Amino acid sequence: MADKIAFLGLGSMGAAMATNLLKAGFPLTVYNRTAAKAEPLRQQGATVATTPAEAVRDADIVFTMLTDDKALEEITTGPDGFIHALKPGAIHASCSTVAPDTNRRLAEAHRAHGSFLVASPVFGKPDVAAAGKLWVGSSGPAEARERLKAAQAAIGQGTHNFGDDPGAASVAKLCGNFLLGTVIEGMAEALTLAEKCGLDRVGFYEMLTSTLFNNPIYKSYGKLIAEQHYQPVGAPPAIIRKDMNLVVQEAYKNDMPMPFANLIRDRLTATVALGEPDVDWASFAKRVSEDAGL
Amino acid sequence: MADKIAFLGLGSMGAAMATNLLKAGFPLTVYNRTAAKAEPLRQQGATVATTPAEAVRDADIVFTMLTDDKALEEITTGPDGFIHALKPGAIHASCSTVAPDTNRRLAEAHRAHGSFLVASPVFGKPDVAAAGKLWVGSSGPAEARERLKAAQAAIGQGTHNFGDDPGAASVAKLCGNFLLGTVIEGMAEALTLAEKCGLDRVGFYEMLTSTLFNNPIYKSYGKLIAEQHYQPVGAPPAIIRKDMNLVVQEAYKNDMPMPFANLIRDRLTATVALGEPDVDWASFAKRVSEDAGL
Amino acid sequence: MADKIAFLGLGSMGAAMATNLLKAGFPLTVYNRTAAKAEPLRQQGATVATTPAEAVRDADIVFTMLTDDKALEEITTGPDGFIHALKPGAIHASCSTVAPDTNRRLAEAHRAHGSFLVASPVFGKPDVAAAGKLWVGSSGPAEARERLKAAQAAIGQGTHNFGDDPGAASVAKLCGNFLLGTVIEGMAEALTLAEKCGLDRVGFYEMLTSTLFNNPIYKSYGKLIAEQHYQPVGAPPAIIRKDMNLVVQEAYKNDMPMPFANLIRDRLTATVALGEPDVDWASFAKRVSEDAGL
Amino acid sequence: MADKIAFLGLGSMGAAMATNLLKAGFPLTVYNRTAAKAEPLRQQGATVATTPAEAVRDADIVFTMLTDDKALEEITTGPDGFIHALKPGAIHASCSTVAPDTNRRLAEAHRAHGSFLVASPVFGKPDVAAAGKLWVGSSGPAEARERLKAAQAAIGQGTHNFGDDPGAASVAKLCGNFLLGTVIEGMAEALTLAEKCGLDRVGFYEMLTSTLFNNPIYKSYGKLIAEQHYQPVGAPPAIIRKDMNLVVQEAYKNDMPMPFANLIRDRLTATVALGEPDVDWASFAKRVSEDAGL
Repeated sequence: MADKIAFLGLGSMGAAMATNLLKAGFPLTVYNRTAAKAEPLRQQGATVATTPAEAVRDADIVFTMLTDDKALEEITTGPDGFIHALKPGAIHASCSTVAPDTNRRLAEAHRAHGSFLVASPVFGKPDVAAAGKLWVGSSGPAEARERLKAAQAAIGQGTHNFGDDPGAASVAKLCGNFLLGTVIEGMAEALTLAEKCGLDRVGFYEMLTSTLFNNPIYKSYGKLIAEQHYQPVGAPPAIIRKDMNLVVQEAYKNDMPMPFANLIRDRLTATVALGEPDVDWASFAKRVSEDAGL
Repeated sequence: MADKIAFLGLGSMGAAMATNLLKAGFPLTVYNRTAAKAEPLRQQGATVATTPAEAVRDADIVFTMLTDDKALEEITTGPDGFIHALKPGAIHASCSTVAPDTNRRLAEAHRAHGSFLVASPVFGKPDVAAAGKLWVGSSGPAEARERLKAAQAAIGQGTHNFGDDPGAASVAKLCGNFLLGTVIEGMAEALTLAEKCGLDRVGFYEMLTSTLFNNPIYKSYGKLIAEQHYQPVGAPPAIIRKDMNLVVQEAYKNDMPMPFANLIRDRLTATVALGEPDVDWASFAKRVSEDAGL
Repeated sequence: MADKIAFLGLGSMGAAMATNLLKAGFPLTVYNRTAAKAEPLRQQGATVATTPAEAVRDADIVFTMLTDDKALEEITTGPDGFIHALKPGAIHASCSTVAPDTNRRLAEAHRAHGSFLVASPVFGKPDVAAAGKLWVGSSGPAEARERLKAAQAAIGQGTHNFGDDPGAASVAKLCGNFLLGTVIEGMAEALTLAEKCGLDRVGFYEMLTSTLFNNPIYKSYGKLIAEQHYQPVGAPPAIIRKDMNLVVQEAYKNDMPMPFANLIRDRLTATVALGEPDVDWASFAKRVSEDAGL
Repeated sequence: MADKIAFLGLGSMGAAMATNLLKAGFPLTVYNRTAAKAEPLRQQGATVATTPAEAVRDADIVFTMLTDDKALEEITTGPDGFIHALKPGAIHASCSTVAPDTNRRLAEAHRAHGSFLVASPVFGKPDVAAAGKLWVGSSGPAEARERLKAAQAAIGQGTHNFGDDPGAASVAKLCGNFLLGTVIEGMAEALTLAEKCGLDRVGFYEMLTSTLFNNPIYKSYGKLIAEQHYQPVGAPPAIIRKDMNLVVQEAYKNDMPMPFANLIRDRLTATVALGEPDVDWASFAKRVSEDAGL
């Protein structure tokens, strides 16, 4: 019989992932701080809980998909956190992009409680999540990782095992977001130089992404940058800025300079400081154009 | 009847391209400063000339593939340059990675002479050139661009038209090399952070390049960086450092800051300063590891 | 009658400051985790306490001069922290270089306890401290700031008032250390370029610091860099790296990019990663020479 | 008897220097492309020439103070350059901020002509030049350097000898301008962080420059930055951007990364791209505020 799943956090990513779990036949209870976001899932057959604790009471697996480390810690081990209501042996699939140490710390709390944490971050935008085509990273206790596979398969097109350290998959996720940032800054500088030199911005984008950089990442982010229209919003600047700060702090902690990461974080900082929140984070590419007087 | 072609500059790239022109049936005369490099082509049927002027005397098309701007200008308009020996109406397919203004200046000289210059830079490493799978950029006078198509088709898998400005395709080429540099630095930082955090460097590379970054560029450069073995040499650090300086100077000339380009150029500068010339330019990724104390 | 002072933290800076308080006639009780460091002060008349709480029991003013935020919080509000033993109305002169929020948080704890915190960071190396020539920043409740003046005058040549916010003087201190970092990197790049171009490194240093940059900071740090001998140790790389990370994080928190600060922090990170701890932090200037192949 | 002097280039710096030469009793002939600028000097007793050649015909010493390398080469060895009109044994005191190689190349031309070049760059703003308080660098043939001393003394408060290489003093000058750039960026980041954290920008500037950074350079540039009023114009952004590009190119040529120099050059590039020419170059500090959303 299918594991009972609770899903906490129904933003654009979480809602899409929860929907796919439901479609795959998992009995699903959902919770979101803003209750309205749970409505579409109720209509598709999910049970809606009014507190995290209520949501997880019968769950074999609890997915969390939250904004940041603070929100994840609060919903897990905070005063109204779900961990105390969790069945022994249950698994927490922690999907948020957080510091490796956050997942490690929560994994300790689960161990003390008799439950498990498997870091389970996902790679892909909301439209990819909706299509069930995310890439999933997975790290934590081996047995729990094994038991989580069926649910991970319902949300993604492939799961990569990063071993026993519950922080490891978070490292991978942070590195992945960092690499996306390098694609954005790289394309922004290349397309802007081309434009300044008289080439057609969109035409050059098309050439690049049909030859050397024929890849969905370059195509999707590159399109936003080539056309300078940063819609729809995959993730807003403030959220990914937080991720880039985690990258920089993880590098600091591990005694490693990361000049590209510094620059991307600062591009996002300027973007946040300039106050245009309702755009995709790739909009930091605008800073490249502005500095060039365009 | 096929155009008669002269090919000047038989480094690893040039030799592969000349070979493919020969295979495609073009009558070919070749020239290289170091004559020994012409020998394999002679054995395959090419005529070997002892001066640039001699090489181009009957040519309809002259390909040049040289180390840098200075070498290109010297062989074209220098004291022993070929331009004076060129037939009226002949086309110079200028394939080297040079400043846009260098091609523009030479295009002027050709116009005065009654010949044409088409910037025809190529994207790809020597193995790609050998396979005839280069991507070709093309810009210059429309009629000449048209006449050059058959020869370009013999060396590449596709040609992209960048219009009439003989500098335009050079801009595109420089931007392309710059983007490769961002891939190298990005992968180096990502893999090194992963390594410092306890992940397996090669394993993480494999995950990245089988998911989000499933692309030949990320795979080929990423492999060198993941395994930290910078062989074979696609291009040595000093050559691409020159290209990155062209990028930075082109940006300066066009009033545009390019922070990623500065950093990549400086990585290559440190690599040149440290004096390890017989490695691929992706070896600047070593600087990332060294700064992390690895 | 002079205020009774407790001094916690007798590193090279703290010991020099405590000695000057003693010389100025303040009754002094000292505490240091490693007791041996208190011996010279005992010989000059200070009372030596064996715990922080014992040290502060009769104190009107408690100076703390510790390595980092964690050490300061531990000695103040930790399980064996001194705050519980403090007399109502006593003043905590917090001299360590810490995050503004750390002093703000501790100021709250003092308020709850009925005591006061005045951030009182100092500018200057150990030899400057020994000479009583530090510059002192001061911020916190007005009345407490006023009462602290006599003690501050005993350790410095001047005190600058930064107002009521207990975080403000910490901001100033962090900015000051950041500026020292810009002097080091700036001098390192300038002297190294001069050297690479054939000028005499030390001679050029002497010219610069006897003309435009005729200033004790440029002279003292510049000398270490010109002669490439990073002794004596004013502060080791790891300590100031921590400060630079506080700068970068404070900038992040306040939505501000700081490219120079990123670079200085990363220079120090590489220096820490390379593992040469017993040198002055200005030794990060070595990275400039190394990158230039010297 | 005093050397006869010709002075070519009467911008704000050149006019002030020429005036001081006149005051010191040197017979003076001046030339400027825009003749009106010569008028005040004529009124003080200078002869005004209508061509460079005419200006230098009787001169023992020719000072040049021009915008850039191109202008200097043109006026010296160009079609209407003065070198052909120069007396054998005359000295060219080359004061412009130019690439070391430019002075080396011109020194060769002088040697061939039987005259001498002494690089004689000056450190200081127009008001410092007017006060005769410039610092002067001097490099070139020993005998010529010796003969130039009296004239250099008339324009400055001290002359530093950089030896026989006519490029050496240019290196020193470029490094000096680079260091000024680090002061500007450093102060801009420090004051802006302080401001973002609630400190008073001007008050903090005053504290810094009356304590650790009590130095005319920090005071004069810092004042512009603290008050964010970039007047009067010591030198406009475009001119110093050219200098910073010379720094970066000299570093490139000598195989040396200079991250601070890259950043300063790019700050100036953005400033030029944004098109506000009639401000002091320290106005690139505005970029720091803008990136912080101020």
